Amino acid sequence: MDSVLQFHVIPGIPLVKAGDDLVAILLAGLARLPVLLQDGDILVLAQKIVSKAEGRLIPLADVTPGPRAIELATETDKDPRLVQLILDESTEVMRKKPGVLIMRHRLGNVGAHAGIDQSNIEHAGGECALLLPIDPDESARRMRAAVADATGRQCGVIIADSMNRAWRLGTIGGTIGCAGVKVLDDLRGTHDLFGRELKVTIINRVDSLAATACLLMGESVQQTPAVLIQGLPPDDSTQSAQDLVRPVAEDMFR
Amino acid sequence: MDSVLQFHVIPGIPLVKAGDDLVAILLAGLARLPVLLQDGDILVLAQKIVSKAEGRLIPLADVTPGPRAIELATETDKDPRLVQLILDESTEVMRKKPGVLIMRHRLGNVGAHAGIDQSNIEHAGGECALLLPIDPDESARRMRAAVADATGRQCGVIIADSMNRAWRLGTIGGTIGCAGVKVLDDLRGTHDLFGRELKVTIINRVDSLAATACLLMGESVQQTPAVLIQGLPPDDSTQSAQDLVRPVAEDMFR
Repeated sequence: MDSVLQFHVIPGIPLVKAGDDLVAILLAGLARLPVLLQDGDILVLAQKIVSKAEGRLIPLADVTPGPRAIELATETDKDPRLVQLILDESTEVMRKKPGVLIMRHRLGNVGAHAGIDQSNIEHAGGECALLLPIDPDESARRMRAAVADATGRQCGVIIADSMNRAWRLGTIGGTIGCAGVKVLDDLRGTHDLFGRELKVTIINRVDSLAATACLLMGESVQQTPAVLIQGLPPDDSTQSAQDLVRPVAEDMFR
Repeated sequence: MDSVLQFHVIPGIPLVKAGDDLVAILLAGLARLPVLLQDGDILVLAQKIVSKAEGRLIPLADVTPGPRAIELATETDKDPRLVQLILDESTEVMRKKPGVLIMRHRLGNVGAHAGIDQSNIEHAGGECALLLPIDPDESARRMRAAVADATGRQCGVIIADSMNRAWRLGTIGGTIGCAGVKVLDDLRGTHDLFGRELKVTIINRVDSLAATACLLMGESVQQTPAVLIQGLPPDDSTQSAQDLVRPVAEDMFR
């Protein structure tokens, strides 16, 4: 890794609609930056724009809650139609209390509402909820390939979402899908400065990058859902965001 | 926030010993960067160098384990002297199994070994363990004031440590102490792009920054325990890392 990393907000990203070509939108934004795309650069996209482009915006009026959703909605003081969508996207209720519903998403990530969001989405046609992409790693791989086709550059792609944590307040960005980025740097078996073997050090590289990128995107009125990271060497890793998920069998906080 | 953030590794930081003047060391390193320190810049320091400078390196030979440490050491297959130090630094055993001991540190952070580390520390005089600083927020405040005295610049200071997470593999950097940085950006009550009120959005700014800074520091043979972040506006926040800790009463994963 170089000794300087730069995070650039990609300007001019319009509101994204189902069917939009995100790579074309990103490239138009990148053309407005004072820097040129390099091999090894990473494009970080907010989950929101990927989900919208992939048509994952669901009108709540189209959802019929079943008995389990109605029961859980009563317990947690939430809209039963929203709870039905959450259940459909999840494998396990982790914790619940009035106002709080913490789920294990089918992709393995644990968090409030299984990543389903109701902010920054158009709701002219009634209330909607935005689901995560079907397969964010595959979405990232497709975008990486499309960027390479259009520019000749081998870039990484991270699809990031803000996440809650059990013991710390405030959200930070994490990675739900990625391509062309080494996800985990496994230092086990290497040695520290004094020759002591590092036993348990595995560094989560993509979440470390997604965190700052999401901070820079902001979360409120700013409309900056994409960030370019420069300063990393070219990377042809085939790891994916699925490699970040701690297996259920190793979960001590289930 | 500006639309570009830069993370610079601060070069030439020597091995730090108890009693060293970290601010003098940092300023010497900063003088070797091609950029000048600005108001609002943030200095991120690895916990390790702060702990070492503050004399928190403890020879295990000096520790006499009590009955509880001996019992817990047997259960978790660890050195009873190390376990005694971990207990002394903690308020609660969160989870344990052979090879794993997850604690709530007296500062509130939950993680393996209560943040006590045995890598990248000198052990010429026998095995040692490195404890966290006594009061990392106060350490950060002192360094912020000393930097202002020496340079006239109002900079933020973050003391960062790598942290494990319950459901995601790999460590990321988090903040154990800080000064002059807005820690949590509380957007509750503000409105999204479409006028919908944001109900639960609080962004953890310092952990988002610490994550990328720690990645850039590396964890193995590189000796780069300090990073300069440029691109943020001046910040006179009086929040501290203690503001990040979810109160025990709200912990659903105890």
